[in-house]
Amino acid sequence: MAEEDPVATFQSYLDISPFQRWLAIKAEEVGEGHLVTSIEWKEEFVSNPHTNSMHGGILASLIDLGGLYAVLSTKSVATATVDLRVDYHRPVSSGRIRATSSIVKLGSKVSTAETRITNAEGKLVASGRGVYLMA
Amino acid sequence: MAEEDPVATFQSYLDISPFQRWLAIKAEEVGEGHLVTSIEWKEEFVSNPHTNSMHGGILASLIDLGGLYAVLSTKSVATATVDLRVDYHRPVSSGRIRATSSIVKLGSKVSTAETRITNAEGKLVASGRGVYLMA
Amino acid sequence: MAEEDPVATFQSYLDISPFQRWLAIKAEEVGEGHLVTSIEWKEEFVSNPHTNSMHGGILASLIDLGGLYAVLSTKSVATATVDLRVDYHRPVSSGRIRATSSIVKLGSKVSTAETRITNAEGKLVASGRGVYLMA
Amino acid sequence: MAEEDPVATFQSYLDISPFQRWLAIKAEEVGEGHLVTSIEWKEEFVSNPHTNSMHGGILASLIDLGGLYAVLSTKSVATATVDLRVDYHRPVSSGRIRATSSIVKLGSKVSTAETRITNAEGKLVASGRGVYLMA
Repeated sequence: MAEEDPVATFQSYLDISPFQRWLAIKAEEVGEGHLVTSIEWKEEFVSNPHTNSMHGGILASLIDLGGLYAVLSTKSVATATVDLRVDYHRPVSSGRIRATSSIVKLGSKVSTAETRITNAEGKLVASGRGVYLMA
Repeated sequence: MAEEDPVATFQSYLDISPFQRWLAIKAEEVGEGHLVTSIEWKEEFVSNPHTNSMHGGILASLIDLGGLYAVLSTKSVATATVDLRVDYHRPVSSGRIRATSSIVKLGSKVSTAETRITNAEGKLVASGRGVYLMA
Repeated sequence: MAEEDPVATFQSYLDISPFQRWLAIKAEEVGEGHLVTSIEWKEEFVSNPHTNSMHGGILASLIDLGGLYAVLSTKSVATATVDLRVDYHRPVSSGRIRATSSIVKLGSKVSTAETRITNAEGKLVASGRGVYLMA
Repeated sequence: MAEEDPVATFQSYLDISPFQRWLAIKAEEVGEGHLVTSIEWKEEFVSNPHTNSMHGGILASLIDLGGLYAVLSTKSVATATVDLRVDYHRPVSSGRIRATSSIVKLGSKVSTAETRITNAEGKLVASGRGVYLMA
């Protein structure tokens, strides 16, 4: 019997969430405590049509969920985000962006994960951390 | 000639953003350095359909934009979010939520604003701060 | 038998810590979920002798410990700081500063508290939050 | 004429600050946008004498100053900390701890740096970020 493809498995986990389906998040890579996701530019993500820049809330969403699923990739169960911190480095105005998430510290009560988001040219556009409550 | 209604003015500012139109953010109150917005529960905001809870990214979005528009309400111009911090206090599963934003410190280079989000019962569900770069 | 003075009680709690004795923290007011502490300017707190400004680490220490003791003032027991966030608003160069701490959300697993620090003129110099792990 | 040793140069910069002299911070390595410092356990750093753990304010201080000096190591000038975030991972109870700081994003108006602190066994005890205002 075939082993399940972890990327397909995580894609199905991500797609459970209606908001994540709306974002059209794609699982790209999955390792233990490590996850890469991506989203494609959508007009509905725009914050300011004059500068055509992506809303900070979209980038914050990727950091929140990226960290949570990075915890899940260790087979640990996180039940909620305790807090989230996002640093915005450059505006995003087009193309696919990739979020690379990894565990900073896996704990029994809370865990910390960080995510770096790069644009189509590989430049860092936002980064940050979430702390998650463990089951 | 009539004074403009500040709530209507801010509603038009909020509606410039495609993402904010998707969130269907409503301006409720506007004062100098003070802003109340709200959103109505939507199925597409759901993070986890088992618990039917709102995605942390939606709440983060309200804190990011609430703080930015609170800065704008002082007639100062903020051009970008430097960073965002969100504390999640309770899950949100239905009803209209209200975000009350106010200035912590208005500066010439950066400004800090905070936002508290309450559910339909008036309970605190999330709160946090943004730092904004000034024009 | 006399009721204990809560300010004296909290002063004795604060003085258990060698670092807090070095800071010479004074308990000023104690209520349920509310605490005011203060410290007097000391040459050893200086970050930059050219500008004579207080080190950000001293201000961060007041926010960390203020939040923790605010949790303790509710008779709940917090065992460790999960994370700390500090916003710096103005340099501090002399006089006594006061830190007013209060509970944002008391939880069974984690609690959040915030602290505002004002200078001798009552101006906000720093503010922030800690999240604490509950016993 | 001899090139100056960058570690000795940064040690002299660190020692300008009375608080940093009290912490007895030692510059260990300096590169462009990269800095390692360390401190030796001192009784005066203790938060709780029952658990003999280092005060969170000491660890926050290392993250604040480590990031600032990492910015300075790029020959850029940062004038103040805008905000600081610290995650506490494990208690520290003895020995020398090392703080490794590096630039996340060097900007013209604000810069972000991160610091990871390890104990004598090389385990991560705290980590975090500062945002700094550029001159």
